[in-house]
Amino acid sequence: MDTSPQATSKYAVGVDFGTESGRAVLVDITTGRELASSVYEYANGVIDETLPGTTITLEPDWALQDPNDYLEGFKTTIPAVLAESGVNPDDVIGIGIDFTACTMLPTKADGTPLCFLPQWRNTPHAWVKLWKHHAAQPEANKLNQIARELGYTFLDRYGGKISSEWFFPKAWQILDEAPEVYAAADRLLEAADWVVWQLTGVETRNECTAGYKAIWSKHEGFPPNAFFKALDPRMEHIVDEKMSRTLSPLGARAGGLTEEAARWTGLNRGTPVAVANVDAHVTVPAASVLEPGQMVIIMGTSNCHMLLGTEERNVPGICGVVQDGIIPGFPGYEAGQSCVGYSFAWFVEQCVPAPYMRQAEARSLNVHQFLEEKAALLKPGESGLLALDWWNGNRTILVDVDLTGVLLGLTLATKPEEIYRALIESTAYGTRIIIDNFKANGIPVKEIVAAGGLPERNKLLMQIYADVTGLPIRQTGTSQGGAFGSAMHGAVAADKEAGGYASIFEAARYMARLREEAFIPIPDNKEIYDQLYREYVTLHDYFGRGANDVMKRLKRLREEVLAEPK
Amino acid sequence: MDTSPQATSKYAVGVDFGTESGRAVLVDITTGRELASSVYEYANGVIDETLPGTTITLEPDWALQDPNDYLEGFKTTIPAVLAESGVNPDDVIGIGIDFTACTMLPTKADGTPLCFLPQWRNTPHAWVKLWKHHAAQPEANKLNQIARELGYTFLDRYGGKISSEWFFPKAWQILDEAPEVYAAADRLLEAADWVVWQLTGVETRNECTAGYKAIWSKHEGFPPNAFFKALDPRMEHIVDEKMSRTLSPLGARAGGLTEEAARWTGLNRGTPVAVANVDAHVTVPAASVLEPGQMVIIMGTSNCHMLLGTEERNVPGICGVVQDGIIPGFPGYEAGQSCVGYSFAWFVEQCVPAPYMRQAEARSLNVHQFLEEKAALLKPGESGLLALDWWNGNRTILVDVDLTGVLLGLTLATKPEEIYRALIESTAYGTRIIIDNFKANGIPVKEIVAAGGLPERNKLLMQIYADVTGLPIRQTGTSQGGAFGSAMHGAVAADKEAGGYASIFEAARYMARLREEAFIPIPDNKEIYDQLYREYVTLHDYFGRGANDVMKRLKRLREEVLAEPK
Repeated sequence: MDTSPQATSKYAVGVDFGTESGRAVLVDITTGRELASSVYEYANGVIDETLPGTTITLEPDWALQDPNDYLEGFKTTIPAVLAESGVNPDDVIGIGIDFTACTMLPTKADGTPLCFLPQWRNTPHAWVKLWKHHAAQPEANKLNQIARELGYTFLDRYGGKISSEWFFPKAWQILDEAPEVYAAADRLLEAADWVVWQLTGVETRNECTAGYKAIWSKHEGFPPNAFFKALDPRMEHIVDEKMSRTLSPLGARAGGLTEEAARWTGLNRGTPVAVANVDAHVTVPAASVLEPGQMVIIMGTSNCHMLLGTEERNVPGICGVVQDGIIPGFPGYEAGQSCVGYSFAWFVEQCVPAPYMRQAEARSLNVHQFLEEKAALLKPGESGLLALDWWNGNRTILVDVDLTGVLLGLTLATKPEEIYRALIESTAYGTRIIIDNFKANGIPVKEIVAAGGLPERNKLLMQIYADVTGLPIRQTGTSQGGAFGSAMHGAVAADKEAGGYASIFEAARYMARLREEAFIPIPDNKEIYDQLYREYVTLHDYFGRGANDVMKRLKRLREEVLAEPK
Repeated sequence: MDTSPQATSKYAVGVDFGTESGRAVLVDITTGRELASSVYEYANGVIDETLPGTTITLEPDWALQDPNDYLEGFKTTIPAVLAESGVNPDDVIGIGIDFTACTMLPTKADGTPLCFLPQWRNTPHAWVKLWKHHAAQPEANKLNQIARELGYTFLDRYGGKISSEWFFPKAWQILDEAPEVYAAADRLLEAADWVVWQLTGVETRNECTAGYKAIWSKHEGFPPNAFFKALDPRMEHIVDEKMSRTLSPLGARAGGLTEEAARWTGLNRGTPVAVANVDAHVTVPAASVLEPGQMVIIMGTSNCHMLLGTEERNVPGICGVVQDGIIPGFPGYEAGQSCVGYSFAWFVEQCVPAPYMRQAEARSLNVHQFLEEKAALLKPGESGLLALDWWNGNRTILVDVDLTGVLLGLTLATKPEEIYRALIESTAYGTRIIIDNFKANGIPVKEIVAAGGLPERNKLLMQIYADVTGLPIRQTGTSQGGAFGSAMHGAVAADKEAGGYASIFEAARYMARLREEAFIPIPDNKEIYDQLYREYVTLHDYFGRGANDVMKRLKRLREEVLAEPK
């Protein structure tokens, strides 16, 4: 019997489609070892100024993408990981993908994006609407109002409010502003499902995006046609006309690679492709989290909180709860903070004085490292500062984009590193209030597993999160949670017969791991942060729950002022 | 008749003793023309680390000065203005001085500062306590508590609270911590009065510092001995033992220059010297303000608000009201903001990013000018920001050093110039709430006259103050309000017989003037600022009047944390 790992190993490829780039990773499915990874920066990136190749200007809050960038992602990254690893395509048993969501587009019946067609190329609504396209806020507001007025209870599954980022506000915006595009769109679908369609030739719809972004539930399905009719009579049959009621569970096989997709990727025709997934959600099994009690936080520019429960409960202010939406057999809860790394980056760009820049440079540190080093010398409570982490509004639990950041406790002695630390602390309080909110609604959280880019880069942040939440924090073994989790799903899509796994549980047992290092709450720090957190909650409720709506009034005033001629 | 101005002109010298330097100006008393000015930077500056020539370390919050620096000020600046102007000492008819207050020192009976004597030279309490020596806070707290408990109404004249900066807390600190210095001090007096003593050989005490800083009033005199006994039995006779109940009105002649002082200054022996004055107060006649309704604001690192009334009223939170304390015949009101230019300087030092520094440098602008230029392009309300101007606590109307700064409305799009403008605006709101407080207590304010360093340097600030307060603002003609006002008092001390003036009113008629340029409120801006000001007041009261004492709790926590070993 040949026992050389080379001969017996099987591999899976995961592809993670992010906001700025696509990333592939090739993983040994028996050991979880990552053999190669490759990144493709989208040529057209985030389209928020002018439509590519034109002078057509986009309105504020628009954010589009070019579907061709996703195809280029496949064509670039998968051949690259094969070449780098030297793995034989015969040993690649499955592919999984994950995507930002809701990132959606209109296509023809054969899957051709409308924006690929000359007659629609200059029409912004024909392109992909990226998750952070926020221009459908009027539609979201109307949708929420109508749903409330008509007594639809589906809002309860989504913390009481449907976001402007989600599927139906975006679809409705197309109808509102470009009815001809809406009419020409045979299909409206998530980019996640679209790329799987391009690989397999088969149109599938995954339960995860349907559940979290398109108001679908296993028990209730989509909202009834009457609801869509109430929004706009032309939308009455949107689900049946432009979507599908047939949804596929995570880990299922969508199909095999087409001849063409095999050419793009260098993989074999017929290689199993998993049903699409969402970047945050697919990270959960990559973080070895397969049961209730552990919260996975994907930390980056924003934070995404993923948690399994034992039964479906309505929790105020969360992004959503979907049965089997993360891991089969459990209701999966999603919550979020819309401003974490964003505010640190804002601070470094707008507020760090020249001498700090020079000192960091002299020591070959980036400014974040330099500030982290200085901030780490401070004790909790030493700065006298307290911040509300709302530079980008509040997602969970207030679900209010019109809230804004606060910095309190400033004195003439306040130093940049103190503000930097206060910003980090504020995001930790924001996470704690989300955890407390879950607990108060009967969903326990006993441990945190951190994923995403921030945990690796900022140990101070990790310790502060541990101290503030009072929970131990571990980190995913992989630094590419999304792509790795997708590879796991690729192995599940391959199934036993092709040398893969029967379930995501089995895949996790072999592939997923956590780092040894853990961040344990320091009792003295915890005690001080408990005091500071109480102050945070008081201000959170004062500014966020209607006692003083000054932030909204300032925003409205700002809009009025900007609307006037200069 | 010889009409050449040279032959008929008479001159007065004003000397202004500031925090870092002394400044003399020589003024033509018939035209108000400033012929020469000269600055002396104190050799020992503000002494807040170690006692000069020793390794003796001062505690935090201490701030001392060296009285020799004041004498050097005379010896340097007065000869310099004589030389620069070419004026004949025979034509200099009077000298006036003004000083920071309460800046006080212990001396022997002949006026020799204790710190000049070898046996006391190494004792910190033997030196001058500068106005911003804040280490007598425990004494101030006890004094206020005892005064309230015993029902003394004098607190009402000072907005309800005696500051730690004032005379009796400082004197009491000497007694508390260095009873041997207290015992050795034959006299305790304002440095203002001490320098006049040095010039004239006559010990006088001016009504202004007595009234504003030493709890004296024309009607009630000093607090009774029983009060001082209640503080500390050893202090029972402080007024009679170490001070004086004989006080001199502003503009009176303290005496003539001694032989020695004539040698120091190059002026004639016997040249009349006016009774000492305070820098802010002496600026009022220099600003042509001699009747109720006009508020003089001396704008610099902090703001000082001077206002005449028609009758003495108790106004909550002001620094004090003193009959004849500014201009004879009127009760003079003083209020203040402890953080104006300070916060702009803090911002420039701690928060302005490197690219702004480079752009400013490339255009040969200082950073303040660069930020002002960018901030001036913004419309009121455009930034969406609102700040509470408490980086250095709040003087009027909350009288609370434990309040701290707030910045609200921050987003990822917030720019440095927006924060800079919000800081300026916050200080304008701080001035408006002081004006509104005066108005609410029956003391009208119809116009503002700005003095000090800021108005010249920042036109945007002036317009914002006009827009926020809804009042027209004019500027003093002189840029040296203190020294100029002192020269006016020198001319009054000389009196008619020596070619001077019979009163400060007469002096003002000839000498004082305002600039032509005025800042008039822009109605559209006023309307927006009215809205923002209402938001400011809501936050001011919420954080400042006990609804949420988070700032104090954060400060206390900070102190506790810092007190622990690292």
